[in-house]
Amino acid sequence: MTPEPSPRASSLSKSRLRLWLKLLKASGLIEDEIRRRLRAEFNWTLPRFDVMSALARSPDGLKMSEISRLLRVSNGNITGIVDKLTEEGLALRVSVPGDRRANLVRLTPRGKELFAEHAAVHEAWINEILSGLNDDDIAGMIRRLDHLTEALDHED
Amino acid sequence: MTPEPSPRASSLSKSRLRLWLKLLKASGLIEDEIRRRLRAEFNWTLPRFDVMSALARSPDGLKMSEISRLLRVSNGNITGIVDKLTEEGLALRVSVPGDRRANLVRLTPRGKELFAEHAAVHEAWINEILSGLNDDDIAGMIRRLDHLTEALDHED
Repeated sequence: MTPEPSPRASSLSKSRLRLWLKLLKASGLIEDEIRRRLRAEFNWTLPRFDVMSALARSPDGLKMSEISRLLRVSNGNITGIVDKLTEEGLALRVSVPGDRRANLVRLTPRGKELFAEHAAVHEAWINEILSGLNDDDIAGMIRRLDHLTEALDHED
Repeated sequence: MTPEPSPRASSLSKSRLRLWLKLLKASGLIEDEIRRRLRAEFNWTLPRFDVMSALARSPDGLKMSEISRLLRVSNGNITGIVDKLTEEGLALRVSVPGDRRANLVRLTPRGKELFAEHAAVHEAWINEILSGLNDDDIAGMIRRLDHLTEALDHED
């Protein structure tokens, strides 16, 4: 016979499940709100913002596969976004010396400038949405989230 | 001239942005891990698990539009999942008395039983993944997440 879990262990397991559902709900609600505002204010999609954000942090450029890995989405989705950014003069593809098949994607000066403007507005939105959390709240949550993701990150 | 934000306010804004990025990362990593395990252990997708979970919590059945609203995904995606669950004898569509166009979707007894088994395994996974968090950590995070989502939830 499988032993029953102790009531103590079982209640902790239920609390962890409850926390997970709340974590999912919070990140989903915030993400929806950001998605809605990006669309309304800039006519941007969230994946476009995320691709530009990844490129803005890598001035030397990123391979398509690197963008996909960073954003954890498929290469196919990234291709369409990068094609559009290129058409609009916000990004460009540069060839990698010594590797004829690989391209690096980079933001153009205009892309950098526009992203910096939108990123500042995005930060202000997050500041407003998370305004109920003070420094202590934030430090406490960051410490616990780091603890949580450390284990998962190492599994890769 | 726009006044510069005080260094204090600006640093809090940066911390909130940092927290948001960590919240997104943690929920993404956990979700990926659950998705991977559902696929490997049960050959289930995460959306299938989520649809069954919504149905399991509504023994009277749910309209397609209610499932989509609860899961915040489009009706089209839900249709394919419900079709498959129905084919497999895990769910069924029942007509709504007095409304010929509306159907309610319900789990069958076999669907309920199978979901209960998989949900228990899912809870054990979450318990393991979140094992670094004790009761205090959980209570602290839940309090802050509730505070956070309260404002967003009221906006609807």
